[in-house]
Amino acid sequence: MSKNSIRAAFEADRLFHAMAAHNPLSARLAEEAGFNGIWASGFEASAAAGVPDASIISLDHHLQMTRAMASAVAIPVIADIDTGYGNAINVMHVVREYHRAGAAAVVMEDKHFPKDTSLLAGGRQELVSIEQFVGKIQAAKATVADKEFLLLARTEALIAGQGQDEALKRASAYEKAGADAIVVHSKSRTPDEVIKFVEAWNGGVPIVLIPTAYPDLTEAMIAKLKKVGIVIYGNHCVRAMVTALQDVFGQIRADGGIHNVDKKIVSVERIFELQNVAKMKESEKKYLR
Amino acid sequence: MSKNSIRAAFEADRLFHAMAAHNPLSARLAEEAGFNGIWASGFEASAAAGVPDASIISLDHHLQMTRAMASAVAIPVIADIDTGYGNAINVMHVVREYHRAGAAAVVMEDKHFPKDTSLLAGGRQELVSIEQFVGKIQAAKATVADKEFLLLARTEALIAGQGQDEALKRASAYEKAGADAIVVHSKSRTPDEVIKFVEAWNGGVPIVLIPTAYPDLTEAMIAKLKKVGIVIYGNHCVRAMVTALQDVFGQIRADGGIHNVDKKIVSVERIFELQNVAKMKESEKKYLR
Amino acid sequence: MSKNSIRAAFEADRLFHAMAAHNPLSARLAEEAGFNGIWASGFEASAAAGVPDASIISLDHHLQMTRAMASAVAIPVIADIDTGYGNAINVMHVVREYHRAGAAAVVMEDKHFPKDTSLLAGGRQELVSIEQFVGKIQAAKATVADKEFLLLARTEALIAGQGQDEALKRASAYEKAGADAIVVHSKSRTPDEVIKFVEAWNGGVPIVLIPTAYPDLTEAMIAKLKKVGIVIYGNHCVRAMVTALQDVFGQIRADGGIHNVDKKIVSVERIFELQNVAKMKESEKKYLR
Amino acid sequence: MSKNSIRAAFEADRLFHAMAAHNPLSARLAEEAGFNGIWASGFEASAAAGVPDASIISLDHHLQMTRAMASAVAIPVIADIDTGYGNAINVMHVVREYHRAGAAAVVMEDKHFPKDTSLLAGGRQELVSIEQFVGKIQAAKATVADKEFLLLARTEALIAGQGQDEALKRASAYEKAGADAIVVHSKSRTPDEVIKFVEAWNGGVPIVLIPTAYPDLTEAMIAKLKKVGIVIYGNHCVRAMVTALQDVFGQIRADGGIHNVDKKIVSVERIFELQNVAKMKESEKKYLR
Repeated sequence: MSKNSIRAAFEADRLFHAMAAHNPLSARLAEEAGFNGIWASGFEASAAAGVPDASIISLDHHLQMTRAMASAVAIPVIADIDTGYGNAINVMHVVREYHRAGAAAVVMEDKHFPKDTSLLAGGRQELVSIEQFVGKIQAAKATVADKEFLLLARTEALIAGQGQDEALKRASAYEKAGADAIVVHSKSRTPDEVIKFVEAWNGGVPIVLIPTAYPDLTEAMIAKLKKVGIVIYGNHCVRAMVTALQDVFGQIRADGGIHNVDKKIVSVERIFELQNVAKMKESEKKYLR
Repeated sequence: MSKNSIRAAFEADRLFHAMAAHNPLSARLAEEAGFNGIWASGFEASAAAGVPDASIISLDHHLQMTRAMASAVAIPVIADIDTGYGNAINVMHVVREYHRAGAAAVVMEDKHFPKDTSLLAGGRQELVSIEQFVGKIQAAKATVADKEFLLLARTEALIAGQGQDEALKRASAYEKAGADAIVVHSKSRTPDEVIKFVEAWNGGVPIVLIPTAYPDLTEAMIAKLKKVGIVIYGNHCVRAMVTALQDVFGQIRADGGIHNVDKKIVSVERIFELQNVAKMKESEKKYLR
Repeated sequence: MSKNSIRAAFEADRLFHAMAAHNPLSARLAEEAGFNGIWASGFEASAAAGVPDASIISLDHHLQMTRAMASAVAIPVIADIDTGYGNAINVMHVVREYHRAGAAAVVMEDKHFPKDTSLLAGGRQELVSIEQFVGKIQAAKATVADKEFLLLARTEALIAGQGQDEALKRASAYEKAGADAIVVHSKSRTPDEVIKFVEAWNGGVPIVLIPTAYPDLTEAMIAKLKKVGIVIYGNHCVRAMVTALQDVFGQIRADGGIHNVDKKIVSVERIFELQNVAKMKESEKKYLR
Repeated sequence: MSKNSIRAAFEADRLFHAMAAHNPLSARLAEEAGFNGIWASGFEASAAAGVPDASIISLDHHLQMTRAMASAVAIPVIADIDTGYGNAINVMHVVREYHRAGAAAVVMEDKHFPKDTSLLAGGRQELVSIEQFVGKIQAAKATVADKEFLLLARTEALIAGQGQDEALKRASAYEKAGADAIVVHSKSRTPDEVIKFVEAWNGGVPIVLIPTAYPDLTEAMIAKLKKVGIVIYGNHCVRAMVTALQDVFGQIRADGGIHNVDKKIVSVERIFELQNVAKMKESEKKYLR
């Protein structure tokens, strides 16, 4: 694998931004829009499958989505491996598979398997011990020799209501165990909680933020915080998709036809473009007899 | 399998409308909007995978999408099996698999494998002979004993520029071979071509229309034509999705953050609703100890 | 689903025997040999995949194997779902999927996820609490309405060294929770441990034995014990396969060619027979033009 | 990808031998026995799936088998891509996927899709034109830039009864189009036909033989022929497996138990060894807390 552009961004102190996607088409649209990377989101994969984000879709399901997206775009794909699908032994298998599938990085979180989604009011938010998670990080790092493959360790200490000290303690332990960055997640409606964490962080690896709950934290503001290496937009792809489909589907039913929606949505030719049909037609000319 | 609601609509002379979808979430939104059925579209599956609709995605890929959607909704799923993935022998395997996967009906078209997508200017549109396609229909019908499983035979004679007579001749032969309905596709920008076909049709099975190219043909107008059993909206799901993603992704990059788009798209809680999280929480109360 | 022949055997007090298999071909050979059912073994699936039987292969992997075998044979397939791939919520998803995949029964065991294989000296053998497992059984039974779909609850109490009383206590609780049979596993080198269990069992549902560790317990002896409904031969398919391959592969390398092994192994024509090629050729005559 | 050991064998004029396999376990046993490479056989994949080798299993099915085997062994995997799953456009997609899946080489044959298996008496053996197949080879070579990824072009001219001249003409055209070796297949019961071909061959790339029909042609004899780069044993894995299973399954039914077969087949511990359980236990000591 050539130089990982996520690491390059870290080294240049340039904020890397990644957009959630759940299939090659949405990944390609994110790349086209100018995002630096793709977030192969477990939440989006679960939502697309119509099931809760609670360790219900299988490793193979998410891995296949990641592999397909990594084939479809040139920018790096960061894979959300949730808890690592079990213990340190599972993690070794899982990390090897994501590396082979073309992921540039994985994010592993310190919750128990089966997990519950982080932003759910009243969700089950149980963490494994620091010792257990350190073992999982060490296992992951020992498995993949490729230095360009990054492991981002995610602490859910704030999500679980365990406070800043626990979050910082975990982050430090995870860095020592080999994590290439620390993802800190919060469901607070303001960015204060994560800003406080970032300000208190004196580790050597960058922080990753997922500002779903506090959308007013812009990239400009994040850049000023220093220390933040990546901002991940965790679910705006599937939310935009649902918004559009309930609107368009509803109008077709109300109208009793597609006569009005046809003008509101992109043409079939635009889809051909995203499918690389023109390139196929060129290849047909060269090779089809 | 219980009574197929597509057949029930045929018997009641009630126009059945089906919306294209490419994953369980989009299928569930179509069901919620009031569509009678789901079109497991090969075009949408290909587009979601980022490849041309030209027999590139595999049988297993499309079958898995169909199975997942059939599990996620209560309305019937009509599977687009393209050319049947080869000859009459392939068709036997394919039809058995779609029946097992929970499809209520399949649509098979009379083009050569590998096919090219129908609405593409300059696409390869080669038909197999009537004899060959009749053999494929007979093979399909002989394979699945379940009377509630429908085979819809699609002629691409108009798409291939072979005219009304050829289209009608093929449709008659396909009905005799056992087809439960005839799908007639056209890329004419007005509905005149298909209306002419419907008016000339004197077979005993209903016609299926896919009015992508002539969106002004409303359901009210179709109902007046009589003889049409199903209208399929073939690609408006993926087109609505692309429209939304290029808009939302573009705005996030322009804004340098999600502060503006957050208000334009549905909430995370709306996604929880579509994932049936509330039902999961009830089950947790009952069974999780 | 029509009458489950496992239940019919229970009702007729006839011992039902099932052979492990890991793909449609081995399942078909077991059916041909006269076995009553197929054991879709997690151990065999893991071994075929070259990984330990320790919750490493994913749900989708094992489910797909089960679905393919259920399509390939007429006898019932009993799916080994290990621990249910997580908690009671996971179990609900899992059981629904196996039912849809055509399994006639599932076996769920009372170990923690991720599990370790039962017969491994020094393996991790940790059980969930009775309360937790009862919740999982109730969740499974509440999910599938089909009365012909059986849930066999497996206690690993003897494997975990917790003794007869604990095993019996768990078995009773599992029956009360709705289990259709109790699987009791033992790694004792003699059948005494399980015989003692069976003799002490006074529940209303049959016992299932897996005599890998104590191969001298014949079906005739089991039948005399009464109360045993099923005997599962858990891994003799993959063990026979490995025996043959190391022999044949070794000889080819030693011989520098296939001249000697060619006479020792079945002909290509025998494989054609198992692939149903003759039936395909008949279909070609009918439908291929 | 590092130096392809198949190419290294070609350069050293050392006959490379590859054994068919159909899952990671059988691939690992072939590697252990000393074979130089694995043949990811379409015939074996079809047989394991219980279906004829007639383009019935899908691209994804065979690709997944190839990927899993490539992950499980250190020796190169040669993937049997049949006809390339369609035309030159399909081939481009297919070849890219096998390269990504870790195959070291692919074999593509000049029959029509859907194909019939080569050794079947009375099978459909229709070839595409030389021009068409040359286009497919050029398309394949243009798709994968990696020089260590080999394309082996297989002519079925002898299988189709078209004679030596046609076979040689095709082989020359395929070499000119970019093939890295020529596979020539024959169903003659003696090696004379292929020996004659090899002797007449004056191209610059090596020949590949698959001596299923003429098993008396040993590696020593092949080496003397010069010009032959690879010998592939095309189906002895699945044939050995079937031989063993019908024997062992039959005996268990005859014996009414496993008491006799238990001594004839490898132990459970041998399976643990092949699953790398010992390595897992070491990892548990290091990382599991």
